[in-house]
Amino acid sequence: MEITTIIDILGTVSFAISGALTAMRKKLDVFGILIIALVTSVGGGTLRDILIGKTPVSWMLNMTFVYVIFGATLVAIIFRSYLKYVRRSLFLFDTIGIALYTIAGVQIATAAGLHPVVCVVLGTISACFGGVLRDILCNEIPIIFHKEIYATVCILGGSVYLASSTAGLPQSIAMLVAGCIIIIVRTLAVVKEWSLPSVYKKDYFK
Amino acid sequence: MEITTIIDILGTVSFAISGALTAMRKKLDVFGILIIALVTSVGGGTLRDILIGKTPVSWMLNMTFVYVIFGATLVAIIFRSYLKYVRRSLFLFDTIGIALYTIAGVQIATAAGLHPVVCVVLGTISACFGGVLRDILCNEIPIIFHKEIYATVCILGGSVYLASSTAGLPQSIAMLVAGCIIIIVRTLAVVKEWSLPSVYKKDYFK
Amino acid sequence: MEITTIIDILGTVSFAISGALTAMRKKLDVFGILIIALVTSVGGGTLRDILIGKTPVSWMLNMTFVYVIFGATLVAIIFRSYLKYVRRSLFLFDTIGIALYTIAGVQIATAAGLHPVVCVVLGTISACFGGVLRDILCNEIPIIFHKEIYATVCILGGSVYLASSTAGLPQSIAMLVAGCIIIIVRTLAVVKEWSLPSVYKKDYFK
Repeated sequence: MEITTIIDILGTVSFAISGALTAMRKKLDVFGILIIALVTSVGGGTLRDILIGKTPVSWMLNMTFVYVIFGATLVAIIFRSYLKYVRRSLFLFDTIGIALYTIAGVQIATAAGLHPVVCVVLGTISACFGGVLRDILCNEIPIIFHKEIYATVCILGGSVYLASSTAGLPQSIAMLVAGCIIIIVRTLAVVKEWSLPSVYKKDYFK
Repeated sequence: MEITTIIDILGTVSFAISGALTAMRKKLDVFGILIIALVTSVGGGTLRDILIGKTPVSWMLNMTFVYVIFGATLVAIIFRSYLKYVRRSLFLFDTIGIALYTIAGVQIATAAGLHPVVCVVLGTISACFGGVLRDILCNEIPIIFHKEIYATVCILGGSVYLASSTAGLPQSIAMLVAGCIIIIVRTLAVVKEWSLPSVYKKDYFK
Repeated sequence: MEITTIIDILGTVSFAISGALTAMRKKLDVFGILIIALVTSVGGGTLRDILIGKTPVSWMLNMTFVYVIFGATLVAIIFRSYLKYVRRSLFLFDTIGIALYTIAGVQIATAAGLHPVVCVVLGTISACFGGVLRDILCNEIPIIFHKEIYATVCILGGSVYLASSTAGLPQSIAMLVAGCIIIIVRTLAVVKEWSLPSVYKKDYFK
């Protein structure tokens, strides 16, 4: 099994569980929970694949992903009452998922021969768009547009990965460095309640 | 004309009419009605085609679909006052559309050489995603995520079709059996108000 | 630089600025503003490319677009307090963007060998879908479904372009005529508050 595949599976589990939990907070039925879990975990990668024309999209060609998502969703439904006692672990799950997806996205975009800036954009899309779709399906303004520096962290991590990878660092080191940066910065951002500088100080748009 | 094409056209008419009626309940203008009718009827098949890389997507290559949707929408607008007296027929229309789209979706996915589980997922997407898009465009949480067993019926019917088709039954018989199952189960589900077992009995997520 | 590219860039600037302004009215953070600007300007062309299978989608292959959008968004953020004094210019920007995108969309669809009706539909999608995505992301029913004759103007302009182009008029003349029709009709429509004829006169759907 290639390292990219393992990364993808780990990220898939993280996102499927966090998606299922969100769907249960919205009181969706079993089918709805499964769909939100599926969309949250494969949504970003699916959009990335569609945008670069890599079809059929990845998760359709590798049943592992489908089974992993079904399994993770089932676990999330059965153990939902315990999961609320492990909120911190779930936050960690989610953050690791973001790091893994960003790097995998950048790798796939690079392999498609696209411009570095586009690669970072595609890495960010891979990591964030599942959550955007989840919010749209649950009828909310996507959280990453007005809270948290979630996406900014992906842009940072994706750029670091691409730079260190281009600079000649071994793949594994580049991935480790970028992954750690994403995980640390996001954790700090949530703990310290960082947000992007506001552009509304003088309230021109009241 | 192939049997798959006829199936597709019948499903298109059913969905276009039900989409136009929804748009009129939302008081959209003529253009809005037409778009919602179009999206409801071709949305599922379009997503299926995009996911498996079958582009340009089907409806663009066969003007029949475009004309059929324009015609059905016009009929729905002109005869809207009569359509409310035929609610049962419209429900039947919609249910037949679901059955037809599920089977057509499974067939196209099978022809693309995908895994049986993915074929059933794509059949369900073909049948349900038009309605999901309609609900998103009308700013609502998609109904299939919290009410009705709509999608579950598609999964059931798609699986039956695939199993009987693989088991060696003639295409026409397999389609008839699967189609009848979808139509009967959905009708029973709505009449008897069946829903998926709740996962919220103990209200962990209050 | 080809004429189609120049057209595309001008339209991109117009839409990015109008997208950024909308995002600022919604009080999104800097990242949210950038994404809404990006989606508003490349959303329509991206859907067109995906539907006809022209991948990687256009803006990923031409960094000019990405830089232009970043630049235009920056300008919109910095000069936002002045932009409200130039509302009329912004309306003009938006209208020119619509005209340019419609024509570019029809051209690309024609080059893909699609049916004229589909070409006009794709031209309209190119011009309108960015705004639809913007409204969905901001959790509103897309404005073009219930107000303004925005899309109708695109259908009109696209048809005129296709007809005059097919009739043998030189490209530049056909584009000029169609572009002017879109700009004039839309301006008149907004000034005179034109809307599509209502289908709800007798209120069948109360």
